[in-house]
Amino acid sequence: MAVKQKTEKKSKQHLGLPIPKGKLLVIGGKESKSEEGDERSEAQEENENFISEQILKRFVKELKGRNPLIVIIPAASSQPEKTSREYEKVFKQLGVENLKVVDIRTRDDAKNPEYTDIIKKASGVMFTGGDQLRLTAILGGSPFLESIKERYTNEQLIVAGTSAGAMAMSTSMIYAGESQGGMLKGQMSATAGLDLLKNVAIDTHFIDRGRIIRMAQAVAQNPGCIGIGLEEDTAILVKEGNEMEVIGSGLVTILDGMDISSTNIYEIKAGEPFTIRGLKMHLLGDGETYTIPSSKGTVT
Amino acid sequence: MAVKQKTEKKSKQHLGLPIPKGKLLVIGGKESKSEEGDERSEAQEENENFISEQILKRFVKELKGRNPLIVIIPAASSQPEKTSREYEKVFKQLGVENLKVVDIRTRDDAKNPEYTDIIKKASGVMFTGGDQLRLTAILGGSPFLESIKERYTNEQLIVAGTSAGAMAMSTSMIYAGESQGGMLKGQMSATAGLDLLKNVAIDTHFIDRGRIIRMAQAVAQNPGCIGIGLEEDTAILVKEGNEMEVIGSGLVTILDGMDISSTNIYEIKAGEPFTIRGLKMHLLGDGETYTIPSSKGTVT
Repeated sequence: MAVKQKTEKKSKQHLGLPIPKGKLLVIGGKESKSEEGDERSEAQEENENFISEQILKRFVKELKGRNPLIVIIPAASSQPEKTSREYEKVFKQLGVENLKVVDIRTRDDAKNPEYTDIIKKASGVMFTGGDQLRLTAILGGSPFLESIKERYTNEQLIVAGTSAGAMAMSTSMIYAGESQGGMLKGQMSATAGLDLLKNVAIDTHFIDRGRIIRMAQAVAQNPGCIGIGLEEDTAILVKEGNEMEVIGSGLVTILDGMDISSTNIYEIKAGEPFTIRGLKMHLLGDGETYTIPSSKGTVT
Repeated sequence: MAVKQKTEKKSKQHLGLPIPKGKLLVIGGKESKSEEGDERSEAQEENENFISEQILKRFVKELKGRNPLIVIIPAASSQPEKTSREYEKVFKQLGVENLKVVDIRTRDDAKNPEYTDIIKKASGVMFTGGDQLRLTAILGGSPFLESIKERYTNEQLIVAGTSAGAMAMSTSMIYAGESQGGMLKGQMSATAGLDLLKNVAIDTHFIDRGRIIRMAQAVAQNPGCIGIGLEEDTAILVKEGNEMEVIGSGLVTILDGMDISSTNIYEIKAGEPFTIRGLKMHLLGDGETYTIPSSKGTVT
């Protein structure tokens, strides 16, 4: 992959890639007051230590600058106005008044200089939920996405995304699959994500929707990508491109395939069950930290 | 644990326990023609290599002796007659005519010498599905169970169990838990199982019902037990107490906690999410083999 160094501000590098100055906030869905309403899963209701709005509060806290601007990007959503209104409401409740919605619907929109100019002034951007294929199909390779990556790499921009907006940050983006299954080859479909977080495959609503086997299939296909499964109302805050901290009421599941000793994934046909030996799994909770292997840096 | 050596036939030992001469067939539920009907999950329908009745055929093939006797034990079931009739029908279709049903409903039944005499003549026994707590509560410590364990240890008895009948074979038996969750301490309940298979916790309907997190909690509680998650229409055949072979159309999930580097399970309160690092996971398919660590032998 070619690394385009747009400015000379960077000094630190890792594996030939600049270490980003910005942060990523990757959210597993249903963070309090999301577009899907604020129902919590049964498990979250039972967790007495559930902290309302904890994740979005942290997002606001991480914003740099005076009167910081949050840009809401409902490009994944089929109801962009409704979704944006809900985020505007909750961010105002959290004390942020400087809000803009960039409602990109087409690839032409993603070339509009007016929108990239807004990104240049942002302290944070929020990708809402919806359909992650909309995000890659509309934003992939666009000037709008370039402007976000450039500011994330060279300045202290916080890029947040929930549900589809989180999954699209992956290197390898899962976009279809049997939630309950995923044990047969071909039951999981992936494509290139927006690649803000390097060398990972992200999945969301992870425990509630039983998605671990489809993630194992993604990791078996390329152990160079670490699987990160985010439960609802659970997020990771990533700094320097690979230092992650868990925030929220649920668990983050890490699937590390670096030590896989065998898999049949390249030998079997579609429709056959895949096997794997030696996958490593971690379950991490609020406040815990983890370093994503070989995942420093960003490219544009 | 005290090892009662009822006979002197044994010679091999492992960790002070005799190596059983019998075999275990542990089935994840919905093997073809089970009590729950023979609907297959969507995943199984999609698997073109699904082999009808493969597991029960293997059970029949493993039976020793001429005109071998299969004893059907519907003790877990609330509909013992219906369940037994279905097994009688399918075993007859597979060519076994010598069938007996031992319908134990109470702890008194489990002391009935007539029933233990039947076990003495059996080549195989089949524990049906139902409620695994019925099995441990009614059979635990009974002369009937002793007679099965004695013949499994010293002779070539095949002990099969499906769904609840499989889970009850565990050392640590899971009997309640949020299938979709299990990430909060206390969402998974376990008790001592019938302990036919040593140092394991068995769960069934594993992928279809998304039970991996509750199994991780069981393993975090005591990594001395390997977690074995059986998908529907998938089984393990265990010989010598720990050499397992996978049979069927789905996957067997192994969770090995021996190398767990940290967990908070003993520090948190009920209702809080548990964490774990360094859990090892294997997904195994039809024909693959695995040696359960430290699990040779049986005790009565």
